[in-house]
Amino acid sequence: MEEVKLLGWWMSPFSRRVELALKLKGVGYEYIEQDLANKSQLLLEYNPVHKKVPVLVHNGKTMAESLVILEYIDETWPNNPILPRNPYEKAMARFWAQFIEEKCNGGLWKIMWCKDEEERGRLVEEASHCFRTLEGELKGNKFFGGDEIGMVDIAANFIGYWLGVVQEVSGMELVTRDKFPVLCKWMDEFVEHSVVKETLPPRDKLHAEFEARLGAPSWKY
Amino acid sequence: MEEVKLLGWWMSPFSRRVELALKLKGVGYEYIEQDLANKSQLLLEYNPVHKKVPVLVHNGKTMAESLVILEYIDETWPNNPILPRNPYEKAMARFWAQFIEEKCNGGLWKIMWCKDEEERGRLVEEASHCFRTLEGELKGNKFFGGDEIGMVDIAANFIGYWLGVVQEVSGMELVTRDKFPVLCKWMDEFVEHSVVKETLPPRDKLHAEFEARLGAPSWKY
Repeated sequence: MEEVKLLGWWMSPFSRRVELALKLKGVGYEYIEQDLANKSQLLLEYNPVHKKVPVLVHNGKTMAESLVILEYIDETWPNNPILPRNPYEKAMARFWAQFIEEKCNGGLWKIMWCKDEEERGRLVEEASHCFRTLEGELKGNKFFGGDEIGMVDIAANFIGYWLGVVQEVSGMELVTRDKFPVLCKWMDEFVEHSVVKETLPPRDKLHAEFEARLGAPSWKY
Repeated sequence: MEEVKLLGWWMSPFSRRVELALKLKGVGYEYIEQDLANKSQLLLEYNPVHKKVPVLVHNGKTMAESLVILEYIDETWPNNPILPRNPYEKAMARFWAQFIEEKCNGGLWKIMWCKDEEERGRLVEEASHCFRTLEGELKGNKFFGGDEIGMVDIAANFIGYWLGVVQEVSGMELVTRDKFPVLCKWMDEFVEHSVVKETLPPRDKLHAEFEARLGAPSWKY
């Protein structure tokens, strides 16, 4: 009997990436919710380097970092591939997953916590440029993975769902239908995907959490 | 006839990572040095997203980001593997390569350009903690890859060679023999490796470049 456990946090897009990959593969797993304000002995033991979720445990072997876990899942359960098999296409998927992580998500993160208005304007401009590049990468496809959801779509889950809530709470108008019609159409497809749906945290709960975290008036713009 | 070209910059550890991987595989390539102060049309065309080196061109297909390129090289030329074949060990190699990139190199980068003394002290402490973790990962092995150089060693090339020059120029005493004996032994093995040697920029030239870039007295400490 195979042991597959996932240590996660309901609000974390990184945890949800791993859940999405496991569900796309049809791999059963035990989910263990973590309280990040009061880290469990299990989390500290399983991810001593970063002490963060997600952590995947597979037959006693533990691993961390969502993109690393996604690659492991794809290699271990090769059905319903989430990465292309061709080395060049695989390199492109890794390139875009990394671009999303560093440039898009990284850019949004900086904007979310920036207190200086001028600096924030500069960050928004920089992030817009990255989202413009990402939008171009869809090239008329339904998903970044083509007809099916792949690594890049999974890596972009924050943009697909969480970002809308962040924008709603903060008044940030970065990725809007008039500015990014192609990306917004992708978002619609993403959240409507039957397996993705199962991995999205409840919108009202997410809204309340972001409001509590980002709600300081100085943050609004 | 196979076309393999590398757009690089002599001083860049990222370029040198790709050269090292190609040399370890015994893949012949044409090296095209780039002037980053005056970016070539070729570079802008081949890496429009980041406009950075390294760029690998293989039979007309172009790709960027050194760690992505390393994986491509290992998949395309499977002899002398640089990643383990076992999915879990591969995940661990990816985990540590990412740790080096983000935590060790990222930490060093912040220290190198930090102007505030108190903040720099905090950054040095944080980076030391990461180097301590990395040192533990060697576990008595000659290389992170075991007996042979692998992905993690290649990813750590800045630590293996460039860092010594940076420390010399700046007076930074972060990774020293008394504090990190195991890591310093790895550095010795790394720079003595016959293939690695071929990919290291001349020390005096590197020293002069870092002195010009980091030489502001406010930076010394």
